[in-house]
Amino acid sequence: MLHNQRDIELHLPTAASSPAIILCRPQMGENIGSTARAMLNFQLKDLRIVAPRDGWPNERAEATASGALENMPPVKVFETLEDAISDLNFTIATSARRRDMVKPVYNPANAMEELLERASKAQRIGIVFGAERTGLTNDELSLCQALMMFPTNPEFASLNLAQSVLLSAYEWDKCANNKNYNSHSAPDLDMNDSTPSLQSEVTTFIERLENDLEDRRFFRTPEMKPTMMVNIRNIFTRSDVTDQEIRTLHGILSALRGNKTAK
Amino acid sequence: MLHNQRDIELHLPTAASSPAIILCRPQMGENIGSTARAMLNFQLKDLRIVAPRDGWPNERAEATASGALENMPPVKVFETLEDAISDLNFTIATSARRRDMVKPVYNPANAMEELLERASKAQRIGIVFGAERTGLTNDELSLCQALMMFPTNPEFASLNLAQSVLLSAYEWDKCANNKNYNSHSAPDLDMNDSTPSLQSEVTTFIERLENDLEDRRFFRTPEMKPTMMVNIRNIFTRSDVTDQEIRTLHGILSALRGNKTAK
Repeated sequence: MLHNQRDIELHLPTAASSPAIILCRPQMGENIGSTARAMLNFQLKDLRIVAPRDGWPNERAEATASGALENMPPVKVFETLEDAISDLNFTIATSARRRDMVKPVYNPANAMEELLERASKAQRIGIVFGAERTGLTNDELSLCQALMMFPTNPEFASLNLAQSVLLSAYEWDKCANNKNYNSHSAPDLDMNDSTPSLQSEVTTFIERLENDLEDRRFFRTPEMKPTMMVNIRNIFTRSDVTDQEIRTLHGILSALRGNKTAK
Repeated sequence: MLHNQRDIELHLPTAASSPAIILCRPQMGENIGSTARAMLNFQLKDLRIVAPRDGWPNERAEATASGALENMPPVKVFETLEDAISDLNFTIATSARRRDMVKPVYNPANAMEELLERASKAQRIGIVFGAERTGLTNDELSLCQALMMFPTNPEFASLNLAQSVLLSAYEWDKCANNKNYNSHSAPDLDMNDSTPSLQSEVTTFIERLENDLEDRRFFRTPEMKPTMMVNIRNIFTRSDVTDQEIRTLHGILSALRGNKTAK
């Protein structure tokens, strides 16, 4: 397990100093439930909602939370955003578009670095999300210290509410628990500049092989066949076979079939 | 706009070489629609579904897609995963848990680097997602060259289907369009090791200021007041005022009020 310089400098925060997620005037219970699930997927547990349209608790939220609400502290409900963030030191507001305000604007990764740095200094932090249709009002935005924008498709920019919470939670976890995201080193298979074959060519070969193996009674019992076919397919998909190799394999099968005929 | 070494080496792919998203046996139309929306949020447009439980087209999918389905090429429907990936060179399967198979396992960022590198060599690529409850079968997994796992909370690991598509689309866009994610440099405000005040202290100060300004008839018309209050709040939230500064500001207000009384 690697600790990079950043981890050491920042004294990784405990769960208590993870950001609170604050939903302003959420309209759909489904989105509140999906938000809770997305938060718990990445270890965030402090969910606050301001003036939910349909009140709280909410059955639709429970349905889409998939058990998340029972596995985190009770959701806190507030009447105003001022109340919801009164115990926090630093909050970042989310927006799908630039606003006519002088605020620092972060992308998600930068925002989480800023939040993590503050959390490491024992500041209490939060991320604020607006209502589904309208986003945050200028009043609400003016209560937050900074703005975070997701670099979405300019022609289709609006993220679903729970989706933008998910991206925030994911980037937070990535930033705070860096080690989880660097444990893999890419496999080093030298392809010698050849192209992996199309899947249809692999499928054709494997079907032919399966038929030939059936002919030869390779599958000792019908019960064993599915597992054996999975193992066989894995050999060829894992190894990224090239066009040339597929031709070679067909040649091998033809040769073996020839053997059988010759017997 | 910065081009880093990687951009230059890889010859950034055109839209045509972005990954296809393949959903195997999706159960809920809502998730198919949310998937389409998440894809288009990050410029992915090749959606393929294998044996959708409720058939296709699907009204619930259209409702949650928020217009995405009309703004991308028609969804392709297949009977089997083999058919759905037959024109692709390289596919990565997603899984919430380790499988007992010899496959390279990527985290999302590494997976996208691998996909981007292959796309830059004119390979056609895809990401494969399993059914909501069960994920991908071993049969389906064995058709893919590699596995991608999201480093979720081990005690609450299961991502919603559309949420895992979103994270993939986001990481793809981040990897393929690196420049969008590095345009911001963090603001450099020297806090001299002091702590930003709690939001409640800022709120208290601003309410007091508002009252004093009302007294002084600062707001020339009632219509102008909301905008002016937004602008005023922004001054104090943007500047990350410290405890000490809040005390100073209260002192200033008291002094000004004193002035008024003196007049």
